[in-house]
Amino acid sequence: MDFVAPLRDMRFVLHELAGLDKVRQLPGGDDGAPEIVDAILAENARLLQETVAPLNRAGDQHPSTLDAGRVATPPGFREAFRGFAQGGWQGLQHPVELGGQGLPRLVAAPCIENLNAACLSFALCPLLTDGAIEVLLTAGSEAQRRRYVPPMVAGDWTGTMNLTEPQAGSDLSLVRTRAELQADGSYRLFGQKIFITYGEHDLARNIVHMVLARLPGAPEGVKGLSLFAVPKFLIEPDGTLGRRNDVWCASLEHKLGIKASPTAELLYGSGKGEVGEGAIGELVGEPNRGLETMFIMMNAARFAVGVQGVALAERATQQAVRYARERIQSRAVEGSEGPVAIIRHPDVRRMLMTMRTLTEAARAVAYVAAGASDFARRHPDADWRRRNQAFYEYMVPIVKGFSTEMAVEVASLGVQVHGGAGFIEETGAAQHYRDARILSIYEGTTAIQANDLLGRKTLRDGGATARAIIAAMRATLAELDGDDVDLRAIHRRLAPALDAYESAVDHLVANARNDVQGVFAGSVPYLMLAGLAHGGWQMARAAIICKQHLAKGNVDAFYRAKLANARFYCDHLLPRTQALQTSIVEGSASVLALDAAMF
Amino acid sequence: MDFVAPLRDMRFVLHELAGLDKVRQLPGGDDGAPEIVDAILAENARLLQETVAPLNRAGDQHPSTLDAGRVATPPGFREAFRGFAQGGWQGLQHPVELGGQGLPRLVAAPCIENLNAACLSFALCPLLTDGAIEVLLTAGSEAQRRRYVPPMVAGDWTGTMNLTEPQAGSDLSLVRTRAELQADGSYRLFGQKIFITYGEHDLARNIVHMVLARLPGAPEGVKGLSLFAVPKFLIEPDGTLGRRNDVWCASLEHKLGIKASPTAELLYGSGKGEVGEGAIGELVGEPNRGLETMFIMMNAARFAVGVQGVALAERATQQAVRYARERIQSRAVEGSEGPVAIIRHPDVRRMLMTMRTLTEAARAVAYVAAGASDFARRHPDADWRRRNQAFYEYMVPIVKGFSTEMAVEVASLGVQVHGGAGFIEETGAAQHYRDARILSIYEGTTAIQANDLLGRKTLRDGGATARAIIAAMRATLAELDGDDVDLRAIHRRLAPALDAYESAVDHLVANARNDVQGVFAGSVPYLMLAGLAHGGWQMARAAIICKQHLAKGNVDAFYRAKLANARFYCDHLLPRTQALQTSIVEGSASVLALDAAMF
Repeated sequence: MDFVAPLRDMRFVLHELAGLDKVRQLPGGDDGAPEIVDAILAENARLLQETVAPLNRAGDQHPSTLDAGRVATPPGFREAFRGFAQGGWQGLQHPVELGGQGLPRLVAAPCIENLNAACLSFALCPLLTDGAIEVLLTAGSEAQRRRYVPPMVAGDWTGTMNLTEPQAGSDLSLVRTRAELQADGSYRLFGQKIFITYGEHDLARNIVHMVLARLPGAPEGVKGLSLFAVPKFLIEPDGTLGRRNDVWCASLEHKLGIKASPTAELLYGSGKGEVGEGAIGELVGEPNRGLETMFIMMNAARFAVGVQGVALAERATQQAVRYARERIQSRAVEGSEGPVAIIRHPDVRRMLMTMRTLTEAARAVAYVAAGASDFARRHPDADWRRRNQAFYEYMVPIVKGFSTEMAVEVASLGVQVHGGAGFIEETGAAQHYRDARILSIYEGTTAIQANDLLGRKTLRDGGATARAIIAAMRATLAELDGDDVDLRAIHRRLAPALDAYESAVDHLVANARNDVQGVFAGSVPYLMLAGLAHGGWQMARAAIICKQHLAKGNVDAFYRAKLANARFYCDHLLPRTQALQTSIVEGSASVLALDAAMF
Repeated sequence: MDFVAPLRDMRFVLHELAGLDKVRQLPGGDDGAPEIVDAILAENARLLQETVAPLNRAGDQHPSTLDAGRVATPPGFREAFRGFAQGGWQGLQHPVELGGQGLPRLVAAPCIENLNAACLSFALCPLLTDGAIEVLLTAGSEAQRRRYVPPMVAGDWTGTMNLTEPQAGSDLSLVRTRAELQADGSYRLFGQKIFITYGEHDLARNIVHMVLARLPGAPEGVKGLSLFAVPKFLIEPDGTLGRRNDVWCASLEHKLGIKASPTAELLYGSGKGEVGEGAIGELVGEPNRGLETMFIMMNAARFAVGVQGVALAERATQQAVRYARERIQSRAVEGSEGPVAIIRHPDVRRMLMTMRTLTEAARAVAYVAAGASDFARRHPDADWRRRNQAFYEYMVPIVKGFSTEMAVEVASLGVQVHGGAGFIEETGAAQHYRDARILSIYEGTTAIQANDLLGRKTLRDGGATARAIIAAMRATLAELDGDDVDLRAIHRRLAPALDAYESAVDHLVANARNDVQGVFAGSVPYLMLAGLAHGGWQMARAAIICKQHLAKGNVDAFYRAKLANARFYCDHLLPRTQALQTSIVEGSASVLALDAAMF
């Protein structure tokens, strides 16, 4: 099998680290048997392993194509999407009253991970649809929600996010697409959007584009952006599909990776449809507050991209392990009869352990954040909700930035484990390396995540949230400080990592006013330091729990493996925090010393 | 212009760091005016910028193709190769008596770098030809040298290295290709070789394959490998080309990058030629000593691949800087009227500085090693030759391993600087990311380099060479320890890096016997630590020299920029040595703790 869902590790993280049992007891939570989540995960894994995972390589070899305005997805995508939709998987975390399953985000997280590990390019369509649904749930009117959400939840329609324009990427203040009010209260949109994932395709009957555009006379900058829902086919009062709207796919990008996923240039208002000139849309939410709405949705989308990072790392790791077990080459350094499987060579093992433990750490960090978002939305205690919301919002840029940077590293190591074979496309390792590279760019580059983490999530409250989180980490540190050899060894690495983390926060907060450039020069190192430290925290928590199981006489090899992984992570990955701390605290001047003209 | 040769930095490294003036005074050195090297570099740059650099993207889009056994290289390659050969560039470092220029390796290094920066795929053909020439110069008979080398130096023929077979990659003991002695003293070869760079092409009239194969009854393992020269067309006594030999290209690999370069599967002895069954070849050197010969050649080839890393990093950096100057996006963090060029954003600057300083440091490390190889070959003093040879041999795996791992990182940052545009193939940044990925694999993976550095170059002499080098680095450290603020700041970072380096060497030497697995688990971290420290050493030497120029009132901005670069490198890259030291000295147990069956 190309891909096997890592259910054991997922269950461990859900139950032991992310508080699934408490999440399930929240008001509005499911009331099924404790085994129901396991059953959902098993069914999810089965479907994806069998129907989606096999599409991954074929989709790379036969990218989506554009012909006369129509996009054909790769062979097998339509059937797989139908199966996915019919299984109810698109509605997993959406409201029951709109056709969804209403499951906690914590339960959705492993399902999203498995979908992305099975086929990143395929998974992008449901992921963007989730984003569009989220926007409508956040800012749409009751009528809009009833009109658009149920068909999207059913997988009958899909959704897109239309933000980027050629001159407006990270900087949405430069968006030029305009919307004009019509006599009937609807709007006509005119403009060009690029990099629109699944902006046109053949998987569903209709596509609902969520579009940022400017109303006439709107303020300049991001405070003049409004949000519109623009369906590919207009919706008749009875819900059936009507005329073809004036939004057209002008081209598909020729990309490094995720080639099966059509990345469209969309033209609004070229006059080629059945509605005259201008794409007909409706305003979602209040005028000029489109970006605020987008920001609410973006937390969910950025979190999901972080999970994509975990997913891709998981798949690349599985592939590398498989090859390392099969490939026979060279004697063992300690001596052997003949050549051995390369998994026995120390450096191959080091690479595989790096891949495996980065993946596990990032998974735990992401799922713990997902659990917090469930508490933040549904816990009866307001203070507990507020604290979990602050934690979740702080963690989102870390989940997105750290997991995706980690995925690029893991995918590159995956190629390296394969040696020369890794460079040959047929092997498949190279595809992961190509696919991974988008993850730290889309939904906000790592620098954008880092600016969010530093500016909005750390400096705005004077570091209070960051410090409260570090205090919680220190409580775990105290638990490690006993007689146990393994836990003491973990303590020895986690302690300086937390010191580095705290010193970075102190430095950034103290210098935000007097040296804004210098502080932002440390933004990405700060994000990576935080990600590594959070990974170390979760690995340490896992180690403590595994020790408890082992102490009770549970000899499950999983617990021993988890302990070994925690120690590797602490010895080989946590020490990177020291170098990052130096960059942040002592290196800002040298980032900016060379004049731009001297490059 | 797509690519501008970094002549200023090259000249600085050649003259100020690598001892070009002393190299030129060696016996057998050129006796031209001091300006001659500058003139060579300028002409080299002009030719490559104008005729080769434009091929890079087109070659990626139109890879070499195979049709009925014949390989067609991309449009423009033949003309460019002819210009390259006619300019005498293939013979740059080869003996004058065989048609070459006889220039020092130190002078060849920047020329090789520029060629690779212009077009990595194109450069591979001359690079492999250099390797084949080197083998013939090392082990060939006088008659063989006269037969094969002059046409290769002239670019009339090219050369290849045939080592890898499907079951024999890093592990050449598994080579199965066999050679049978014929009545006339020649040999017939039978077998399959894969991953043969420019194994078949249309750039030259003939191809001389240097092939590892086994004689009947040869010992098993690497001590039973002999080396053969097998020309594509047999050579008549008068030097003209005769019958088509029985070596055929069966397929070309479909690769992640360097797509213009044909990577061939070659079949020996399929009986399709004009010579009957079996490819006719001649033994080069003594029977069963083929690998020893290859190892001598490999130092040169590995060094050249290290220079490829520098070259690719240089080109990726130039492309990213260009984009960062042109792309206007978001206001400056310190405030600005409107959106600014992204080169003004601190994190973009941090990425560009990382790219630039890694490239410069790796260049300096490589050229200094090239200078040492000239001293080792031609200095009148035997002790000085021996010490330089030891230094060069120690440095080769570092140059190869560190520069290429660095190139992968730099190319990935290059994509990131471009944001979404970086993921679009038309931009070109993605090609560097794909091309770079082979560099840390071919000519021996980073692990193979690290095993060489650790096993042959460090443990074999009990760490003596490594410690002698560290002592020389400490002499530079002492020079930094004065009143100058910049040099003191550099001292502050270099000192712990050297301590980490030395402690790693001590640990590895001390534990080589009692914990061979644990020691080799630290081999790649040791290589990377050494590479970073050597980069820091050369940056520090550069800083001292720049300070001297500035103190003399020379206000050349180049010197100030170099100082700024040295400080950035020390603040942001050297601190990585601490984490690597922890991995090596304290982390070996956790690399191997998880049983292979538990993956």
